[in-house]
This record gives sequence, structure tokens and C-alpha cells, in this order.
Amino acid sequence: MASPSKKRNNLFGQPISVVNIGLASFAESLRQQDVRVIEVNWRPPQTGVHRFLHTPSGTSIDEANEEALRRIMAGRPMLVGLDVAREVIPDMGENTILHAGPPIDWDRMCGPTRGAVMGALVYEGLASTPEEAEEIASKGEIAFSPCHHHHAVGPMAGVISPSMPVWIIENAEFGNRAFCTLNEGLGKVLRYGAYGQDVYERLYWMRDVLFPTLTAALTSSGPIDLRAMIAQALQMGDECHNRNRAGTSLLLRALGPALARTCEDGERLAKVLEFIDGNDHFFLNVSMPAAKAMIEPAEGIEGSSILTVMARNGTDFGIRMAGEPGRWFVAPAGIVDGLYLPGFSADDANPDIGDSTVTETAGFGGFAMAAAPAIASFVGGTAKDAIQSTLEMYEICFAEHEHFTIPALDNRGSPTGIDVRYVAETGILPKLNTGIAHKDPGIGMVGAGVLRAPEKCFRDAFEALKNW
Amino acid sequence: MASPSKKRNNLFGQPISVVNIGLASFAESLRQQDVRVIEVNWRPPQTGVHRFLHTPSGTSIDEANEEALRRIMAGRPMLVGLDVAREVIPDMGENTILHAGPPIDWDRMCGPTRGAVMGALVYEGLASTPEEAEEIASKGEIAFSPCHHHHAVGPMAGVISPSMPVWIIENAEFGNRAFCTLNEGLGKVLRYGAYGQDVYERLYWMRDVLFPTLTAALTSSGPIDLRAMIAQALQMGDECHNRNRAGTSLLLRALGPALARTCEDGERLAKVLEFIDGNDHFFLNVSMPAAKAMIEPAEGIEGSSILTVMARNGTDFGIRMAGEPGRWFVAPAGIVDGLYLPGFSADDANPDIGDSTVTETAGFGGFAMAAAPAIASFVGGTAKDAIQSTLEMYEICFAEHEHFTIPALDNRGSPTGIDVRYVAETGILPKLNTGIAHKDPGIGMVGAGVLRAPEKCFRDAFEALKNW
Repeated sequence: MASPSKKRNNLFGQPISVVNIGLASFAESLRQQDVRVIEVNWRPPQTGVHRFLHTPSGTSIDEANEEALRRIMAGRPMLVGLDVAREVIPDMGENTILHAGPPIDWDRMCGPTRGAVMGALVYEGLASTPEEAEEIASKGEIAFSPCHHHHAVGPMAGVISPSMPVWIIENAEFGNRAFCTLNEGLGKVLRYGAYGQDVYERLYWMRDVLFPTLTAALTSSGPIDLRAMIAQALQMGDECHNRNRAGTSLLLRALGPALARTCEDGERLAKVLEFIDGNDHFFLNVSMPAAKAMIEPAEGIEGSSILTVMARNGTDFGIRMAGEPGRWFVAPAGIVDGLYLPGFSADDANPDIGDSTVTETAGFGGFAMAAAPAIASFVGGTAKDAIQSTLEMYEICFAEHEHFTIPALDNRGSPTGIDVRYVAETGILPKLNTGIAHKDPGIGMVGAGVLRAPEKCFRDAFEALKNW
Repeated sequence: MASPSKKRNNLFGQPISVVNIGLASFAESLRQQDVRVIEVNWRPPQTGVHRFLHTPSGTSIDEANEEALRRIMAGRPMLVGLDVAREVIPDMGENTILHAGPPIDWDRMCGPTRGAVMGALVYEGLASTPEEAEEIASKGEIAFSPCHHHHAVGPMAGVISPSMPVWIIENAEFGNRAFCTLNEGLGKVLRYGAYGQDVYERLYWMRDVLFPTLTAALTSSGPIDLRAMIAQALQMGDECHNRNRAGTSLLLRALGPALARTCEDGERLAKVLEFIDGNDHFFLNVSMPAAKAMIEPAEGIEGSSILTVMARNGTDFGIRMAGEPGRWFVAPAGIVDGLYLPGFSADDANPDIGDSTVTETAGFGGFAMAAAPAIASFVGGTAKDAIQSTLEMYEICFAEHEHFTIPALDNRGSPTGIDVRYVAETGILPKLNTGIAHKDPGIGMVGAGVLRAPEKCFRDAFEALKNW
């Protein structure tokens, strides 16, 4: 056997690898000496967070957050019906186009958002070609506004134009309403920035057939309890953001009898059922506004550091806090660590985009990954990774959800209520999972993946609350 | 601090408890001295199992079992239609009543099986009251026969009478067919031994409305792939024996468009959808015959020690092996460790009953508990217990399923193909979960729980294969 000293000599006779924890400059200087470096993205936790139990004006942040979480978890989002966007979404004019994420002008808009805007203008008859639409949009003739400014949310580009049908979700506990378009399916679809005749045809069918058929059914069935449905779907392998197979199944079950009673044309009914059955994401556009409807009553609670908005427009990532609901804190949208559809690669990917992070903000979606190990395996992870991912999010959340529970954690409530203080204290950034749009207008979906929220907007929000 | 000797004195100053491992007689003699005894049901593994790699006639048991598993996993059970039992189940005369489990006469039949027989005779018009039915049955005028002798399976009492509609499942790979009644729902239902006007009314509605409506839809839709559907349901929190919420949802989705196209009466269609939506066990009566259809092609493989039947009639528990498919090995049916519906207790419980253990025999059901932590929590266990339960079953199974995989185990194939040799070698008995019927005829469901298969029939089967 080799002596200890011999071993040591052998060790240093090998190429040296270094694990660098913290400041990247250390790693850089090692790399310049041709040393292999593995970097661990770690930084010492910020200190002094516990001093911020009270705002400078004396409000208890913990008490404010308790009230925020009380309201969020008491919310009872009910699917009550559908209507045309301009008829039901507040402050929506004929030239208004809503989009996902924080406010943005045409000049700074990413490719998929531009593509969706161009498609929507043709769909509305405001332009006859995408090129004409581009010209109209670039001239400032369109009033762009975030969905979140109108009690609405939109997946990916999140474009809502005036004549699009939208779901209406009413929070039975607080009376507020939230809105979202109907999900088109995957692939070449408007929300991923695609346009073209096939995209418009699908949207027309949704407006002319799907919308009235669902409206009649919901009028007949009465409101559907979405909090119960999301809770059930979490027991069935969904996290209700990137996996919605159970939610879509449960929604179909709930609507089925009323659809049968109200749709006299059997072939039309069959087509509606096939459209929904053919799209396991159909429930996403219901779970998102359900989340929005649950969160909004927490807006305006003085001193609350709980996130009420976390959304991306494909250029910027933005957050808002309950204690200062009108103010966005933004940072550049992140790059998704993704898997790509055949023929596409990371070079084609637009940065992170969409309002669908409203699900994580409300305590499900990526925060309930432990309920949906199938998603973890889709992006190359294991069931253990999925559990670890949820366990990590407890570190930055103020509460565990009373209604949304995770079977693999013995029905522990899912981590709910992202507290800006905890994110700053721990350095743990919210973990998101998302679809990936092509960076150019007119193409559509190219993949899906995971990423962290950018640190900057949380740091800025934390600085802001120190001055409340 | 107390000295070590002080501590020891304290220990012996307390009442002594003893953990007894193995022979019960040791525990008994301690109990007679008023010592509290905790018994661990353990015995040394049987030795010599590995000598049984070949039957006395020289056949390789491993090779035979590989062929058995190849056939079971290659099976493609398709839901192809429905028909009236007497029209489609082989050797079913007008006075035949099929029942769950191994063969049994009226004299030895348990209460719930008697109750279901009495109800079925009234339903058939062969008796006008349950009392008259009892008399007819006890006189030997009815030919009782196990479902398993007719390529059929039945949950709980498992009674199939000639005019009941049954699902037809065809194994597209091997051409064999399997049959099962339609699920009535929970509570006071025939399969739990209940009879009475409400029970008959439901059965008449199922025969007169549900059966023709589903038949028309399946004729229009074409065959439905049940192996794919069970595989999906296992990804959605079902184990497809005692939890069938996902399976029922997926079946409804698959049937929906064809139902819409073929059922012109909207109210009738609504009632059919409501009946299925109202019963999360609707899929059980499809998953059971799917399992039966998958397993049967393994019957008759010389030298195979794989179970092809495991079933209970409420009095006896019986198994059959692929290598000797005509021979039952029986033992008294076990007592279920259960949770009870309000107003009922263990005193009301009938022993273990039903053919639904065909699911465990085919590699799902209780063997896939890790996929359905919700069931574990229903009977007081944790998600970890559910995983442990599945891990234990790998010890007695010959293979891991190629198509049925478990998300919580990173999609490891579920334990499939119970090998009588492994049960004998390890002393690990199959773990089952089940509903509980009232022991008296005419009442119905009283609870649900878990238990192990009885050891005796496995020991007898093992002795038998030594003489093949």
C-alpha cells in the first residue's frame, strides 16, 4: 500500500481542479493559469434583514404579511363565465393591446411579443398583413398596456386584443375579478409570437364556436370552484403551470354535463371536446387568472413585502409588492435553461417571457414541483430534484398553503407568498419553469425549461421597503 | 447526573416490555407472566429455494417466467365495446351466476356474495323477493362459477348475471378477450352485497341507458388503448385499484367526442356524463379486465411459477400459477386492517373479497402504491410508506413493467409478475388494498383498508411446483 506521503505526492502530480465558491474573480485568475474551475454560485447571506421587522414608519411587516397571506388563501376563485375582452376588461379601448410582464414600448419589445401584436392586429382587422401591422404598431397608434394593469394575465407574449374572448374568474370572497384568453394549444400559436392564416383561423374558430359553446355551458352549470380544482390537480401530478393534464381533465368533467345540455349540435360539441382534449394546457389559462384573482386582494396592504406580481415581457422581468402595488421593480429577463424541439437550439430562444409566473406567485406552479415529478424528468431532473426544488422555495415563502397541498410531502401546504425579505436574506431566487418562444416574430414555440428569477429586482425591492 | 449503574437500576425499576421476534410461543409464555409483549411477525427465510431453478422434469423456471412476463407486458388491452353477459361470456347459461374468487357453493358463501346473488336473481326476474332468491339459490337451482373460469373478473362479490351489460376488452397482441360489469358507484351497491329497489333501479338504468349510450360511442370511436391509459393514470396519482380518479377522467375525455356524436338526446348524454363523473371508481371495472386480458396469455407456460390469478370470494383466498393454470391453491380469506364509514366498525366487516387483486397480479394496484400516496394517507400512512410498500413488492416480483412506471421512483417500472418462489424464499406476502363489505347480505360498503395475502396458499403452490 502507498504511504500517506506518497498519496499526497500523487494528488499533486495530477491536474488540479478547483471548486470556487463566491467571487467570480478568483475563478477567473485561476482559469488564466489553465486550472479547471467549477464555480458554485454562492454568496454570504445579506445581514441585517431581521432589523426589517418594521418599516421605518413603524408598521409590522410580519403582521402585514400575515394579512396578505390570509387574504390570498381565503380567496375563492370561481369560473363564472366568458365575455369579449373589450366588454369586460376595464380600460380597454379599441386600440388597446395588452401584453405580459411589466410596461414596455414597441421599440423595446422582444420578437415574440411583436409577433403576437402583429398577429392580433391582423386578427382584429386593424391591419391586413403582418407588415402593415408592424408599421401601425411602430407609429405609436396602439396603446400598449400590461395585462396586470387590467386585472388580467396572459401566458407567454400574453397579448389580449379587444375582440378576443376571455375567461372571467370571480373571487367569491372579495368580489374582485380576473381575466385571461382561452388557450390555443402548443406549437405555432399567437402567444408564442406566431402569426399566419392557420393562427388566425384557429382564433376565429375559438371566437365563433368555442366561446359561445363554453359560455352557454357555464351559464347553465353555474360557477366552477377553481381553488378546489387546482387543489385536486396538485394531487394528480400537475403543478398547474407547465403540467395541466389533470386540470384539463377535471375541467372537462365539470363542464361535460352542461355542454351536453346546452349544445344541441352533436358535431359541434364533439369538435369542442376534441379541441380541449387535444390540448393538455387548456387549463393553464384558467389556473393563471385563478391565481391572479386570489392574489389581488392582498394589494395595498401597507408594509407587506409579499410579491403580488412577478411577470416577464420577454425583455424585462418585473415584480411588485403588496405594500406598494403600483410600483414595478425590473431587471433584464433571464435566459432559460431549456430542452428544445427538433430543429431548434438555444440560439433561437427568446429570454424568459409571460405572466404565467402568477402561478408561482400564488403558491403553485414551479413552487409545487414536488407534486409534478413528470416535469422534473422532462427537463432531465429526478423526482428527488422536484422535491428538493419545492423544499428550497419554503425558504423564501411566508406561508404554507392551506388548500394547495403536496402528496409527496404528506400533503404539506405548498410554499406560498414570496417574501422579498427572505429572498434578500437567503440569496435564494424563485425557481421558475416555462415554455420557450422563438426570438423572432412569426415562428412560435421552440422548447421549455427552467431558470431563476433575476436578483436585481429583488434587491431593488428590498432597498425600497427599507424606505417605506 | 445519574451514574450508569443508577440508570440501569431505573430501567429495571420500570415495567418491562419485550419485543418478540419469531415463534409466538415465547411471547405467550411472557404474557402469562403479565409482561407486555410486542410481536414482530418474522421468520427465517426458507432455504433451498435456489435449488428450484428447474422443475423435476427439467424445465428452466426462469426461462418459463421470462416468457410469461414477455407475454404479459406485450399485451395490448383495448376497450372494444360492450355486450350483454350471456351473449359474450363463454359458457354462461340462463341460470349461471358468476362470482369473484375461487369456486364456492352457496353453503360456504359469505354474506355479501349471498346478498349480491340474491339481488342479481331479483334483477334477472328469476325471483321476486330476496327471500325467494335465497331459497332458489340454496336449493341448487343456480350454477355458480368463478368469473376467472370465464375470462371475466368482478370487483368485491363480483357477481355477473346473464343479462348484465359487460365491458369487452380485447388483447390486440394475442386476440384473447376479458369481461367485467360496469361500475355502479360506492355505498349501497350490488357488488358490496346490497340489494333493494334503489339497487335494482340503478342497475336497470345502467342496462337501459348507460349501456346502449356507451356502446354507440365505442362503436363510433373505435378501440381505446387501455395500457396507455393505465400508464397515464399511474402518472396522475392513481394506482388503478383503489384510486381511479385520473383513469375515470381520462376515459371520459377519450369517450367524450364520440358520445357527443352518437347520443342525440342532450339530457340523456348529460345524465350519462354525470353518472360517470359522480363515480371516481368507474375506471376500476375497465382496469380490472384490462389486467385480466394482459395476464391470460401467460397461462399454460410449462414450468412458470408466476401468478396468473389471485382472487377472493369473501370466504377463501385463491391463487393459480401460469404453469398449472387449472389448479387453485386456497386459504381462508384474510381480515382487512381498515378504516370504517360512520356507524360501522371491524365487527361489521366481511373478510377480504373480490377479483380486484387482478390489478396487483398484473403489476399495478397495491404494487404501484408509490404512484398513489393519497391512498396511503387515506389508510393512515405516509408518502414514504407508499414508496416503501412498492419497494418491498419488487422483492417478490420477477420483473419491472416496461409500460407501467412510477413517477416518484423516477419512472422505474412497477413490480410485475408475482413469483411463488420469491414469496416462499423471502416470506414477503403480497400487500393488497381493498374495499370492505358488510358481512351480512343486503347492506353494502362499510370501509376500506389494507392486508397481506395469506401465506398458506403460497406455501402449497410452492410445494406443488416442486413436483411438476
